[in-house]
Amino acid sequence: MTFERDRESKNPERGNRYETSHYKSALLSDPWKPCRRPRAIVKEWLLTLRCCLGAMCGMEWYSYAALGIVMAFLSFLMDLSVTKLLSAHQWLYMKLEGNSLLQFVCWTLYPACLCAVASSFSHNICPFSTGSGIPEVRTMLSGIEMPHYLSLTNMFAKFLGLICTLAAGSTVFLGKVGPFVHLSTMVGSYLSKFFTPVQANKKDKAAGEMLVVAAAVGVASCFGAPVSGVLFSVEVMSSHFALTHYVPCFFAAACGALTFRLFTVWSGDEETLQALFKTNFPTALPFYPLEILLFAFLGLLCGAASCCYLSCHRWILQFTKTNPVFIKMLATEKGLYSGMVAFLLASVTFPNFAGQYMASKVRITTPHLLLDSRQWSSQFHNASVHLEPEPLLEWSSPGSPVYLPLAFFLLMKMWMLVLACTLPVPAGYFMPVFVYGAALGRLHAEGVAYVFSSGVTSGQQWASINPGGYALAGAAALSGAVTHTLSPALLAIELTGQFSHAGPVLLATLLANALARSGHRPSFYDALSVSKRLPHLPSLKRACPQLPSVAVGQFLGVKPIQLQKAAGPAEIEHAVKTSSQTQIPVVDSHESPILLGFVLPIRTLEKHLDEVCCVRPASVLLSPHSTVQEAHGVLSLVGDQTLYVTERGRLVGLLTWSEMKKILEDLAREI
Amino acid sequence: MTFERDRESKNPERGNRYETSHYKSALLSDPWKPCRRPRAIVKEWLLTLRCCLGAMCGMEWYSYAALGIVMAFLSFLMDLSVTKLLSAHQWLYMKLEGNSLLQFVCWTLYPACLCAVASSFSHNICPFSTGSGIPEVRTMLSGIEMPHYLSLTNMFAKFLGLICTLAAGSTVFLGKVGPFVHLSTMVGSYLSKFFTPVQANKKDKAAGEMLVVAAAVGVASCFGAPVSGVLFSVEVMSSHFALTHYVPCFFAAACGALTFRLFTVWSGDEETLQALFKTNFPTALPFYPLEILLFAFLGLLCGAASCCYLSCHRWILQFTKTNPVFIKMLATEKGLYSGMVAFLLASVTFPNFAGQYMASKVRITTPHLLLDSRQWSSQFHNASVHLEPEPLLEWSSPGSPVYLPLAFFLLMKMWMLVLACTLPVPAGYFMPVFVYGAALGRLHAEGVAYVFSSGVTSGQQWASINPGGYALAGAAALSGAVTHTLSPALLAIELTGQFSHAGPVLLATLLANALARSGHRPSFYDALSVSKRLPHLPSLKRACPQLPSVAVGQFLGVKPIQLQKAAGPAEIEHAVKTSSQTQIPVVDSHESPILLGFVLPIRTLEKHLDEVCCVRPASVLLSPHSTVQEAHGVLSLVGDQTLYVTERGRLVGLLTWSEMKKILEDLAREI
Repeated sequence: MTFERDRESKNPERGNRYETSHYKSALLSDPWKPCRRPRAIVKEWLLTLRCCLGAMCGMEWYSYAALGIVMAFLSFLMDLSVTKLLSAHQWLYMKLEGNSLLQFVCWTLYPACLCAVASSFSHNICPFSTGSGIPEVRTMLSGIEMPHYLSLTNMFAKFLGLICTLAAGSTVFLGKVGPFVHLSTMVGSYLSKFFTPVQANKKDKAAGEMLVVAAAVGVASCFGAPVSGVLFSVEVMSSHFALTHYVPCFFAAACGALTFRLFTVWSGDEETLQALFKTNFPTALPFYPLEILLFAFLGLLCGAASCCYLSCHRWILQFTKTNPVFIKMLATEKGLYSGMVAFLLASVTFPNFAGQYMASKVRITTPHLLLDSRQWSSQFHNASVHLEPEPLLEWSSPGSPVYLPLAFFLLMKMWMLVLACTLPVPAGYFMPVFVYGAALGRLHAEGVAYVFSSGVTSGQQWASINPGGYALAGAAALSGAVTHTLSPALLAIELTGQFSHAGPVLLATLLANALARSGHRPSFYDALSVSKRLPHLPSLKRACPQLPSVAVGQFLGVKPIQLQKAAGPAEIEHAVKTSSQTQIPVVDSHESPILLGFVLPIRTLEKHLDEVCCVRPASVLLSPHSTVQEAHGVLSLVGDQTLYVTERGRLVGLLTWSEMKKILEDLAREI
Repeated sequence: MTFERDRESKNPERGNRYETSHYKSALLSDPWKPCRRPRAIVKEWLLTLRCCLGAMCGMEWYSYAALGIVMAFLSFLMDLSVTKLLSAHQWLYMKLEGNSLLQFVCWTLYPACLCAVASSFSHNICPFSTGSGIPEVRTMLSGIEMPHYLSLTNMFAKFLGLICTLAAGSTVFLGKVGPFVHLSTMVGSYLSKFFTPVQANKKDKAAGEMLVVAAAVGVASCFGAPVSGVLFSVEVMSSHFALTHYVPCFFAAACGALTFRLFTVWSGDEETLQALFKTNFPTALPFYPLEILLFAFLGLLCGAASCCYLSCHRWILQFTKTNPVFIKMLATEKGLYSGMVAFLLASVTFPNFAGQYMASKVRITTPHLLLDSRQWSSQFHNASVHLEPEPLLEWSSPGSPVYLPLAFFLLMKMWMLVLACTLPVPAGYFMPVFVYGAALGRLHAEGVAYVFSSGVTSGQQWASINPGGYALAGAAALSGAVTHTLSPALLAIELTGQFSHAGPVLLATLLANALARSGHRPSFYDALSVSKRLPHLPSLKRACPQLPSVAVGQFLGVKPIQLQKAAGPAEIEHAVKTSSQTQIPVVDSHESPILLGFVLPIRTLEKHLDEVCCVRPASVLLSPHSTVQEAHGVLSLVGDQTLYVTERGRLVGLLTWSEMKKILEDLAREI
């Protein structure tokens, strides 16, 4: 992609001028459009505006800023709608106080209906809109085109479906970030289409760059966390991160995050720009140096938990694909299935039933409480219960130890979360894992504090540890381990604005990742990719490490349409008409097809091939013996160019992204 | 680089076993070494240890951890020595209180001698050790080998020279981070050599990966800032960041940063792991939303200041290279020149002379004071001067407005800094710019607070702004703009542990970068690269944008040594002996040199070429029409492989990193 830019930047002036005059003449000469004169004037004004804007910086920067602002607005809008819907549910539930049966109906049917609506809606409008979308985004970022996943209907279905899913609340316990990254790529691709006509000569690479930027903006505008957005964008790339995308990513992510936080200020929710889950850890002595060992242990614990979760998830993915009842149900009755699962999950969390032991009334997707820096146990010991806010009461009834509800919560949420992952609705799977990790970290810390404060040993300093820090580290470690990424470490810090625990959080995340990655285990998204048979090379490699070493030669099908040097006008015309490629290779002769170069179909028709000037040399060639991985790497390096596969100088095939997509789909089918 | 790893990971087991048995037999049969039996036993123990370690994770992870720990230790050791040397100077200066002449001698000669020593020392031991080292590291990271810059003597000279430079203190006003990144790459390259024998089958890519990791560790262990270390490592790459380096970078950076902070704890300086320049900004309301505009303005101000600084720096670089007096002096009398410049700088900052107006007694390389969250002006207004620590007094004498010393400091330090950059000593240029930016931000904020508090307008909220936040933003913005990077934004946050200002800091850094990068201006390191004629493609491209589009064909010199398919044993032996390449290309015949593949010299001698199995196909080919930039990109993708340049199937040349280095050096000479 870098090549494209450089080649084209050589004569931006000329291209610009050419296009401007082209617009004008096309407008004035277009006979069937009404009000030609006013339209031309408006257009001229727009062109002047574009010149003014373009003089300051390239038009693509405006599109990045627009992407950030639009996504921040969507994120704010979604948060607002979800809050309203959740409050409505809560209001209804409170109004029915006293009548358990009606309360149960309200508690269970509301999320069940919402999930059923989300599911049927997204299934009927655009079936590609279900799930997280991150596996598809990863595939698109690796260079494969998947137009279904970037359509306008998909965006519409995903946005509304996601609101419904999130409004189902903490009973269904699903998140926002994955679909938001997907939404961001859709908005990005639309904006890049919108800005392409005014970008003059950067068509080819604009779309690819926009997707990378959009991935960063998705995370940044969802949480107001620009730096972790950029790191996420780096991590989500398949093998190489092009440095040309670095500054655009930062710029767009900063726009998105700042605007998102500004919306909160403008709406009057907050006085200034602050972290999403603001915490108040003590800054004087955030933790004792020896606590590092506890954090390391927590990291390993989270790694083990992630392995458990991932294997359950893989099992249920396999189960839903092989069990005939499931297959039939998911094929025809998506809405019914979603409603049933949501009903089941909601019944379990009903506050008068098992829900009372797992704090189901707390809106768990905002883990403020878990990140609280005070020890819950000591809060109760000090008998200051009546001073505490009500939510804390949810987590512990006075008298019973504080870690019992936490442990019960963790035990139940594990299977509930795995079950919720099968729901065919637009939903994110990152935030639930983040919260689960926070609960795990909190339990760890409360447990340690309990053991030391009850006088088992004489470690007084251990009794006063800050459980909020452990919750933070646990959240980052578990979500990092499940997704095989490190950006959650930074995300945890950006979400809470708490930098004092940066070191331990990073340590826990690294250790959890090490455990989760050992033994070639696939990540959460890898498993989804493989299960969906997406043409994503890194996932395929993880599932079957020897696959990408297959030689590319064995996938090259029929010989491509080619021209010989001495081709006459008739042959050229025929080739141009039948070829679907953007380039037609030129060879010595059909008998000895030594590759000479290629011609562009549009410019060829006028000339004779012997005019050497119009035959361009192919700069990078592949041999049929090169592996799929090498071909993929070279292809992502050269961007949209066509790669020629030659053996001993003779042309044996072409390789473009669409061929690569077919090859990878073939490979995915073999797993 | 990724390719290598995958190809070789196919049979790690076999390679491992082979090598183990090979060690044993070689040891036992070696006749001239004494104590064969004990040595063999020890070696066997070591091998068992290696197996145990290797069972947990790859040996390379131990080398990354070792790199982090070693660098953290060196960083701590350096800080300790520099602090001692600075205290000695301060002690001497205080003892001479009352005698201005002696004080002047002490104040000026101490840094002059240190600089002279640093300069002569580094010049005599290893002339490559002067300067920052970051331009060279960037060149090495882009794939070019520069063994002089990784030698042990260089490490020795750089380490000791840097201690001397830093001990010269705030009069010379130079930093630590650049040389530290360079030191880190040297240590990394030694560690990778040390670990290579036990790494079995990952020789090729180990060195390259180690350099990338080392760049991250350099920053991380210098400041205890792991995330900005990784971002620096991403930014410093020439065009693509390979994702395989991402986790190693994070791991090693975390090791380095944690160990560095732990050393501070163990030495008793601090109670726990905290940020290097700890600040205490108010968390309730860090800034008003409208202050964003002030931060944006500060970003633009820093961008303008960076342009000014960079053009001065380019001018003096040009001047020292063209002025005959300078050339002669820098060629022969490096020590004298350094001493003279240091003497001049020290005389200017003498506290009884101009130094009293620019707080020269404050140790400026630790900008605690500039980042203070209280307004200096209000401190004096409140007449609580006697309660303040002495350093604050340095910045302002009661009665005079607080911004005068700051403005004088900024004015003087600009030319002093540019002059200091010409010193031929090992020194970093990042931290001075960071501090300069902090002073600029502070001046901006104090100015705003002064204007509003003196009743010009009625903006009461503006009068209570926190100047520390502006100093932070200014530091990040100016250092980011000068180096054309964004990681300083995160570095500023990690250095101070202050997350509340993340948004404004990022905004200011982005705007400053936008201004500094506009109009194809080279960055600080680009200018150094071009001035030193380093074979670094991105710098060359910035200096002369059309250069890298030159076709690679015109640089291909003599025909490479090649074998024809029907070559006999004598011809093969001759080719193997004369060729300096690691691969020898095989062609059809010398008359029609159609490329068939290549052979490895070592394995070839035994066999006849007709045995097809030993001729390996070349997977990626280049045409002579491909540009230097394309060739560079493909070369960095395939790692250490040799690229074959063919035209119509005929071999016309070879391309390896050493050829690429020659090409880039040729290009650099043309500028």
